[in-house]
Amino acid sequence: MRYSCGSVEEDASGGSSMQAYDDFLDRVRDIHRIGALQGHLGWDQEVLMPPKGGAARSEMMAWLAGQRHQRLTDPAMGTLLDELEQTSLEVDAQANVREIRRAYTKACCLPSAFVEAFAKARSEALVAWQQAREASDFSMFQSTLEHLIEMTRQKISYYGVTTTPYDVLLDEYEVGMTVADYDPLFSGLRERLVPLLERITLAQERDNPLVLPDELRFPVNKQEAFCESVSKNMGFDFDAGRMDASTHPFSAGLWPGDTRFTTRFDETDPFSCLYAVMHETGHALYEQGLDHEHRFTPRGEAVSLGVHESQSRFWENQIGRTEAFWTVALPWFKEQFPASPDWDAATLNRIANRVEKGFIRVEADEVTYNLHVMLRYEIEKKLFNGDLAVADLPTAWNTMYESWFGMKVPEDRLGCLQDIHWSMGAFGYFPTYTLGNLYASQLLEAMRTDLGDIDALVASGDWTPMLNWLRPRIHQRGSQVTPAELIEDATGHPPSPDPFLNYVEKKYSALYNLD
Amino acid sequence: MRYSCGSVEEDASGGSSMQAYDDFLDRVRDIHRIGALQGHLGWDQEVLMPPKGGAARSEMMAWLAGQRHQRLTDPAMGTLLDELEQTSLEVDAQANVREIRRAYTKACCLPSAFVEAFAKARSEALVAWQQAREASDFSMFQSTLEHLIEMTRQKISYYGVTTTPYDVLLDEYEVGMTVADYDPLFSGLRERLVPLLERITLAQERDNPLVLPDELRFPVNKQEAFCESVSKNMGFDFDAGRMDASTHPFSAGLWPGDTRFTTRFDETDPFSCLYAVMHETGHALYEQGLDHEHRFTPRGEAVSLGVHESQSRFWENQIGRTEAFWTVALPWFKEQFPASPDWDAATLNRIANRVEKGFIRVEADEVTYNLHVMLRYEIEKKLFNGDLAVADLPTAWNTMYESWFGMKVPEDRLGCLQDIHWSMGAFGYFPTYTLGNLYASQLLEAMRTDLGDIDALVASGDWTPMLNWLRPRIHQRGSQVTPAELIEDATGHPPSPDPFLNYVEKKYSALYNLD
Repeated sequence: MRYSCGSVEEDASGGSSMQAYDDFLDRVRDIHRIGALQGHLGWDQEVLMPPKGGAARSEMMAWLAGQRHQRLTDPAMGTLLDELEQTSLEVDAQANVREIRRAYTKACCLPSAFVEAFAKARSEALVAWQQAREASDFSMFQSTLEHLIEMTRQKISYYGVTTTPYDVLLDEYEVGMTVADYDPLFSGLRERLVPLLERITLAQERDNPLVLPDELRFPVNKQEAFCESVSKNMGFDFDAGRMDASTHPFSAGLWPGDTRFTTRFDETDPFSCLYAVMHETGHALYEQGLDHEHRFTPRGEAVSLGVHESQSRFWENQIGRTEAFWTVALPWFKEQFPASPDWDAATLNRIANRVEKGFIRVEADEVTYNLHVMLRYEIEKKLFNGDLAVADLPTAWNTMYESWFGMKVPEDRLGCLQDIHWSMGAFGYFPTYTLGNLYASQLLEAMRTDLGDIDALVASGDWTPMLNWLRPRIHQRGSQVTPAELIEDATGHPPSPDPFLNYVEKKYSALYNLD
Repeated sequence: MRYSCGSVEEDASGGSSMQAYDDFLDRVRDIHRIGALQGHLGWDQEVLMPPKGGAARSEMMAWLAGQRHQRLTDPAMGTLLDELEQTSLEVDAQANVREIRRAYTKACCLPSAFVEAFAKARSEALVAWQQAREASDFSMFQSTLEHLIEMTRQKISYYGVTTTPYDVLLDEYEVGMTVADYDPLFSGLRERLVPLLERITLAQERDNPLVLPDELRFPVNKQEAFCESVSKNMGFDFDAGRMDASTHPFSAGLWPGDTRFTTRFDETDPFSCLYAVMHETGHALYEQGLDHEHRFTPRGEAVSLGVHESQSRFWENQIGRTEAFWTVALPWFKEQFPASPDWDAATLNRIANRVEKGFIRVEADEVTYNLHVMLRYEIEKKLFNGDLAVADLPTAWNTMYESWFGMKVPEDRLGCLQDIHWSMGAFGYFPTYTLGNLYASQLLEAMRTDLGDIDALVASGDWTPMLNWLRPRIHQRGSQVTPAELIEDATGHPPSPDPFLNYVEKKYSALYNLD
């Protein structure tokens, strides 16, 4: 349903509330357009911006944040929300009112000057983090991070929360989730993942695992061509988007018809690029599949980070790390890398699924990945509960890592400086990655019920039935309902970790011939 | 001088007018920030945007144009301007008030809906032009162009002008210039350029001119490296800017620390790329040299298109098309293109200065260039004075071209579809290119008076004295004074065509051994 003058008569509540809703929608679209500009400049900052452009960029980001805040907290917005909440609205309109009410309520707690200063601090921190990471020296980033954490605490206190500050942050990235939800979830996962990891490690030692020969080189332009084939076959429309390179792969659903993602290239390892591309294409397919009739409103935007991550994880892992996938991708791989060993699909799949106690989260396999997330979750919880000083962060990180993974972190680049998130002030973000893993497995189960043998489908090379399954159930629905409702509507069950645990245990037992 | 609270006491007019000026400046900066965003999205649209991004981009451009218009025409702006015009202000503040008054007065004539519709039409027209040019078929662009011209006429009538509509457009791109100024200027140029062209043509036929051997290839990445060396030596700071590729080379001074220009690559002709790069670097040096203390105000921005073009033309022609330049560039050229014939600097310079009655303006030499501009000027004059229908444009173009150049235009791509300007609604823009040529020669003369033998300076390889001469006289002054005043301050003489005509006659007489 479109909200135009033509639909006035269809609405039982009459012309006046439709007028209010139209006014509301005009304001919402302006706010979201500013958000889209922030997204565009953010994309540009990571992909293209020259080093000396940082100062003016920070200033511009601060200004946009201020403009957005000013419009969101306009008293007229409060009046409209009050009126619309008393009105009978259809489901899409309800969603917009619900989402904007939440944003409005929080924004009204924050002074404009604070919002601008925080945006500026974040944009500047990105540069400081890049330099510290380059030098692999946390001390170069420490004061910046302290400042961001201090500002984040300030934000929480503006919200009037004094007892459980970290919950505020968790809720910010996945509405409704708190420490009380995550703590048992994570400990449940650890209980089954850690023993699984031990069994796989033993099996790998026994089986002499496959690794890439050191001397092999995979040229960047060939990797690009190979990954484009995969991305296209997943359904990414390159006429409505781009693939570029950046240090930290990410995707940005700028606006209708223009969705961009990035990857990175390592000439010694084409798998790194491939799975970054499958991951980011998963995100990008969600953005391309949103209902553009509702553009620049919550209804036309992705519902949550957790659901977003389910889309990237689904394609990267559930589809991409299977022998069925490699059956299809093998000829593309051979076309681009004719000099590589004569691997078959099963071998490539084993390489792609090698479990390793590595240092880097984004390169982690499906078994260890959630342990990396938990580590960050525990660190953030301590930081915001006052149990950890920023100066002690590297030690805390390295100690926890060693106790879980049994290895010493040799340098900050491979430890607490590896992720971009904290430099963006994104505290409480990481746990949504685990939610994404759980949702992805749950979606796979439901998809199997509807479409039958997914391995056979993947191996057929025509992946459109899977995309067509996701489109109406996830992508096109935008923020029509809450994340948990969306998952339940799509799968018939409320969110649960069981499908993931069953999936991962079954998959790796088969791969490693575990008893 | 900076406009901060600290400078209140320095101002004789006291605190209240400083308060008014600060308020004014806040508003001006907001308006210019929106302009900077338009510039950024415009750059992106030409360099990166995927095809299907056009619709949402047009919508966003229209929205930004509307936002900018709304702020510029805010009645409070009128009140502030009235007050500040009664106040004693120092010269930089005066410049800002003068420039914003002109923009305000014009903007107030235009309804918001018109401004947004016009911005949308322009952004859409860009796509239509690209397709028509690709197909080399003017009929595909005709109705779009008719629509833009109709909207432009509408704009002129909103301004309340009924008699000389084209003057309004000319003034829009170079303040103070009208048909009454350009007509005698152009006929004066034609009087001396056409006979010069005939003499050169005869001399070339006699001398068996140098051309590039057809079979030579100059790889794109080598051209890129060669051109970067030249651009760097001119003084472009690659840490504060970028060079990219686009169909139509252009430069965009996005904001402090981030100035971008583009070029294009033709594997058979490295000169095309080189002179595009020198031209655009000239523009970009102006942008990098602006006084960033005054960013996002007219005082901190380039004064006019004519002066901007003087900077690009100065480097492209006065410096780049000399034997002295090639003495310096020869080793860079040989490093990148070791397989090219063993040309010396004199030979490369003769290739670079070959005069040709070509079809394409941007590839034209210094003798024919202004004839290309005049042709567009005459066409525009007829279009807006009602003497030419859009449907008849190709015929009018081709007829005039044949009568001046003695050749038939074989297809629209090489004729009336070659330039991007009309698709951007930029009618009245072309004549500023000729002003740029005139100013550039005048600046060269003045520079020679101050710095002595310019050829020797160029040949020395250290070009910083020239950039340092331009910085305080042109770049750093922004819009402090009018274009004509700026040229007069810098050169000691009001703008005049004589230095250009003397320069071009002397240069080509020597190159072609004319009597």
